[in-house]
Amino acid sequence: MDSMMMGAMSKNMESMPDMGMMDMSVMQACMDACAACEQACTVCSTQMMDCSPACMNCADMCNTMMRSMMRMQGMTPASMMAMLNACIAMCQVCMDECMRHADDSDVCRMCAQACQACMDACMAMKDMMMASA
Amino acid sequence: MDSMMMGAMSKNMESMPDMGMMDMSVMQACMDACAACEQACTVCSTQMMDCSPACMNCADMCNTMMRSMMRMQGMTPASMMAMLNACIAMCQVCMDECMRHADDSDVCRMCAQACQACMDACMAMKDMMMASA
Amino acid sequence: MDSMMMGAMSKNMESMPDMGMMDMSVMQACMDACAACEQACTVCSTQMMDCSPACMNCADMCNTMMRSMMRMQGMTPASMMAMLNACIAMCQVCMDECMRHADDSDVCRMCAQACQACMDACMAMKDMMMASA
Amino acid sequence: MDSMMMGAMSKNMESMPDMGMMDMSVMQACMDACAACEQACTVCSTQMMDCSPACMNCADMCNTMMRSMMRMQGMTPASMMAMLNACIAMCQVCMDECMRHADDSDVCRMCAQACQACMDACMAMKDMMMASA
Repeated sequence: MDSMMMGAMSKNMESMPDMGMMDMSVMQACMDACAACEQACTVCSTQMMDCSPACMNCADMCNTMMRSMMRMQGMTPASMMAMLNACIAMCQVCMDECMRHADDSDVCRMCAQACQACMDACMAMKDMMMASA
Repeated sequence: MDSMMMGAMSKNMESMPDMGMMDMSVMQACMDACAACEQACTVCSTQMMDCSPACMNCADMCNTMMRSMMRMQGMTPASMMAMLNACIAMCQVCMDECMRHADDSDVCRMCAQACQACMDACMAMKDMMMASA
Repeated sequence: MDSMMMGAMSKNMESMPDMGMMDMSVMQACMDACAACEQACTVCSTQMMDCSPACMNCADMCNTMMRSMMRMQGMTPASMMAMLNACIAMCQVCMDECMRHADDSDVCRMCAQACQACMDACMAMKDMMMASA
Repeated sequence: MDSMMMGAMSKNMESMPDMGMMDMSVMQACMDACAACEQACTVCSTQMMDCSPACMNCADMCNTMMRSMMRMQGMTPASMMAMLNACIAMCQVCMDECMRHADDSDVCRMCAQACQACMDACMAMKDMMMASA
């Protein structure tokens, strides 16, 4: 995400006391990983391989996850945790599917890597939220 | 959802043994509740009241939830459960926000009702999946 | 769309003089056709046939078209016309692709019908807007 | 967009003769501008100012535009042109709204800039497609 826009978002979040002390660099990394995963999954889904439905599901969830982080005024710690768990679960399914064709398709291999990175970033968000709770 | 298309979907799902015996009428009710909730939240979000960010978040999640049920080939029981939990959490936040203005805004009252109905339908999906597991 | 919510939307639109006199029943029919087309295309896209990328594109555009009609405060007559033209173009591509497999796949046949219905509803919106301009 | 994934996409597009000779750097710039505009509009929409509905509309359209470029197998030159025109129209509305508050809100000013950049990138796509037709 653009760094100036990120600065503006950070300032808004100071007025959301329920959210605890968010480390904005962790959140920015998570939004970026979601955006990259949505893009990788969207390209991968056009290959018409077994993984396509999982890729489409994962693309939609990553976009919804990213947008939710951009609209924290409409989130609670509990809903954030549930969303992160769901995003991790969808990335896991997509990664598992794409790994089965990773030797045959460069796109599947890159998609699996994007899913792994997105899972890692979502887990870092969960760790940060639990530490600040 | 259109009943003929639903019939075609049901037939596809017979080839997904991991998903257990799905009661398709419960799933159809859940998809319809998600679609109705997305629409109510989208209209409600344009009112520029405190609830708007929660409404936008809920609209996106309900759409993603609905689409995931239409692409069950890319789901597992575990990812389905995580998604249902996240959708319930987002509907809860939106309903709580909209209930605070339910006396002042008909749209907020209708939106809160659509969120409640969507939560109920997602819980019925969870119950059905646990019973068939 | 739910008729009570539609009533609330109609009342909001009375305060948008630029939009001319909208026939709300034409707009409601168009939103419903977009919602139905998104659903048909989403199911059809999971078949892993040649039409899948066109179906995914059409599903996303129909959802965006529907939401834009629910957020008319953020539209102008010119942007509405451009969106309707784009939605018609996407439905046309998807319908053409799906018609090629309509004999082999019930889902493709139903998807093509949903695309045709959505195109017709978008054209009716255009006619209504031009008549009221 | 990730450059390795972009390389894989380019290779896929060599098998789409109808699309003419696409300059992939122009398309990559357009996808990136759409992604940035979706993010700026999503953040801007949470400010609950007059521009919010236009921002939400623009965010959805930019996402749909970006995804359509990632799924060119489901596009034709005609549908691409119609989509680019619609995306330009939505960015124009959003930019006009946000410019009215650009002095009061840094986020609106940045959002207007992202809309302008997205319009420019879509126009470059149109120019490129017309030159190669």
